[in-house]
Amino acid sequence: MLRDHTDAEARAALPLKWGAVPEGTIPAWVAEMDWHTAPAVTDAVTAALQRGVTGYAPFDDAGVGAAYAGFARRQWGWEVPPEASVPVPAVVPGLRLVLESLCPPGPVVVPLPCYPPFRDVVALAGREAVHVETDPDDPEAALDLAAVERAFAAGARTLLLCSPHNPLGRVARRAELEALRDLAAHHGARVVADEVHAPLTLPDGPAFTPYLAVDPRGIAVTSTTKSFNAPGLPCAQVVALDPEDRAVLQALPLVQTHGWSPLGAVASVAAWRHGDAWLAAVRDRVAANRDLLGTLLAAHLPLARTRRLEATYLAWLDLRAYAAPDGRGPDPVARAEAGGVRLGPGEDYHPGLPGHARLNLATSPDRLTEVVRRLGVALAPA
Amino acid sequence: MLRDHTDAEARAALPLKWGAVPEGTIPAWVAEMDWHTAPAVTDAVTAALQRGVTGYAPFDDAGVGAAYAGFARRQWGWEVPPEASVPVPAVVPGLRLVLESLCPPGPVVVPLPCYPPFRDVVALAGREAVHVETDPDDPEAALDLAAVERAFAAGARTLLLCSPHNPLGRVARRAELEALRDLAAHHGARVVADEVHAPLTLPDGPAFTPYLAVDPRGIAVTSTTKSFNAPGLPCAQVVALDPEDRAVLQALPLVQTHGWSPLGAVASVAAWRHGDAWLAAVRDRVAANRDLLGTLLAAHLPLARTRRLEATYLAWLDLRAYAAPDGRGPDPVARAEAGGVRLGPGEDYHPGLPGHARLNLATSPDRLTEVVRRLGVALAPA
Ligand SMILES: Cc1ncc(COP(=O)(O)O)c(C=O)c1O
Ligand SMILES: Cc1ncc(COP(=O)(O)O)c(C=O)c1O
Repeated sequence: MLRDHTDAEARAALPLKWGAVPEGTIPAWVAEMDWHTAPAVTDAVTAALQRGVTGYAPFDDAGVGAAYAGFARRQWGWEVPPEASVPVPAVVPGLRLVLESLCPPGPVVVPLPCYPPFRDVVALAGREAVHVETDPDDPEAALDLAAVERAFAAGARTLLLCSPHNPLGRVARRAELEALRDLAAHHGARVVADEVHAPLTLPDGPAFTPYLAVDPRGIAVTSTTKSFNAPGLPCAQVVALDPEDRAVLQALPLVQTHGWSPLGAVASVAAWRHGDAWLAAVRDRVAANRDLLGTLLAAHLPLARTRRLEATYLAWLDLRAYAAPDGRGPDPVARAEAGGVRLGPGEDYHPGLPGHARLNLATSPDRLTEVVRRLGVALAPA
Repeated sequence: MLRDHTDAEARAALPLKWGAVPEGTIPAWVAEMDWHTAPAVTDAVTAALQRGVTGYAPFDDAGVGAAYAGFARRQWGWEVPPEASVPVPAVVPGLRLVLESLCPPGPVVVPLPCYPPFRDVVALAGREAVHVETDPDDPEAALDLAAVERAFAAGARTLLLCSPHNPLGRVARRAELEALRDLAAHHGARVVADEVHAPLTLPDGPAFTPYLAVDPRGIAVTSTTKSFNAPGLPCAQVVALDPEDRAVLQALPLVQTHGWSPLGAVASVAAWRHGDAWLAAVRDRVAANRDLLGTLLAAHLPLARTRRLEATYLAWLDLRAYAAPDGRGPDPVARAEAGGVRLGPGEDYHPGLPGHARLNLATSPDRLTEVVRRLGVALAPA
């Protein structure tokens, strides 16, 4: 069901992931998939292009909210009103708008590791970031709620939640989200949940709980662009259950909200409505690659540590055991690059944390096998 | 050569322009064309979709700068280095980034009337706007350079130039741009030129002069999205001749610069490279519609005043003679709406200026004829 790219096809299709690495290097860094998006998306967008849909976005939501509501009902058994979604250009600009216009003044809790633009967006919104770190040796890697409580008690009034988590690949459990909601309510704080990876929760792991299903005061930002590999068709959505929150967003100057494309909306509607089977194939592929990764690591990098991936196609690897024996010399990520594999450097996600890397599993089993084989050679103790 | 939309096709293709008006009303407001974009654009984007180009934008400019350089040479005899362009998501976000990161502190001169987001963007950039008004009775409607000089002398350090001008439809003459450059240099101010309408300079009017051709310290922002009717394929470009200015933009967080789509870049490259013949057909159609408008106004609205359109497909109409005789009662734009035509209200472009309207000519001669016929009925003195 998935249409994989050959290397040459991937170079033509994915100018960031494949274009930013030297020929011969296998890119396993930025979160893009080495296969085509769903035919339902391509077909819908192609048909819209033929109709001449190349203009401005409408004042309404182009059907995105209703399509999302159907997806949420089918996939998570969650009833969200169709009118709860306000389209925005992309997820990160959506987070910025939400921080600027819907969150109480005060510092913003950003758990680490985090998707790097989270830090940029807090700075752009003119807020102070308070970091809550995940202990790299914690087998669970759950959000440290005690640290969150301390941050709220010290004045933070917003928490940027990544759920499911990039780069930890973890699905937050319902009970944790309920505890977080209670903390936020107690301190008058607000939780903003980036749920762009939710459609990529793996079939054999814990179920995804939409944050708004436990906390109607929360705000979610989501999109089909990540799970359907189509950020080039811009459209994301802020989901807010309180009509007053939506009215605030809708009253912003069009300049801020209106960079989404009607073609992006066509893609999103097609994905939310007609993408389930394709998405199931993606999840199966990623789960199989995760299992393959386990086998490959055991063979080629027995000292690497990783937790069982529950969501996303991004594995978080602890490669500290492969740091140079004296703690000096090039980082494992630099050695991987020299050995023909581009990883995401752990420091980008968790400043100050050495020896970690993010590995993109959204590729063919053959390429993944070659990636780990190369890593084994590159990181082998001299 | 142009493929016109029927009403039903236009409603399906243009959800903002046609979707925001009641059925039966002819929309002549927002700047969209009632015909398909160039086949070169649609074909290039369709082919890219088939290749799977739905992902992130690359670190480089995807060829946009080189394609623009070719267009500038052919159309304006201007040599601009291919590396002068930095892609940004759209024109107005580009203006915002330029104001925030490249313009000296201090108020920003915004000539009136203006494209309404100019005022939003100055506010978003945290700057004070200083308005320089065009006298609605000035037959030339040139920029009031004496007022600009006073504004610079009083502390303004940036001027937002719209060239060619929306909504006045005027092409700035080279000598005026040179005088503006000299004023800016004298006061250490910077001119930021929105040149998105430059490809729509009409064949029988004055030639377009790129602002950077007279002032290498200026900054231009442009795009193919307006002249090729494709804002739904997001990609615009900041053009800066000074490598240091570009370095500043390139060092901004990706969140701010990276919302352009590789599909938008494919569209832009196709338009700059292969769009000349199609664009010539658009300019011929608009020039013919401008002449038709003259005839129609003489027949149906003899008291309306307008200047000869030199660029853009947007006519600026002085309908003050059709205001209610006692100066009260509904504005001509409200009466036009009641009569089945949506115009752009003059107050949106020039707050406080009564009785003006912007009329979109990018439609079929038949629709334009019906528009002016309806306006004649709607505005006829009782
Ligand atoms: C957690 C998270 N949020 C957002 C995004 C994408 O954001 P945007 O839609 O702004 O490209 C990603 C992409 O990898 C992500 O991992
Ligand atoms: C003067 C001017 N600038 C910019 C734009 C479009 O800007 P954007 O690319 O942000 O949609 C328009 C659209 O009509 C315009 O008239």
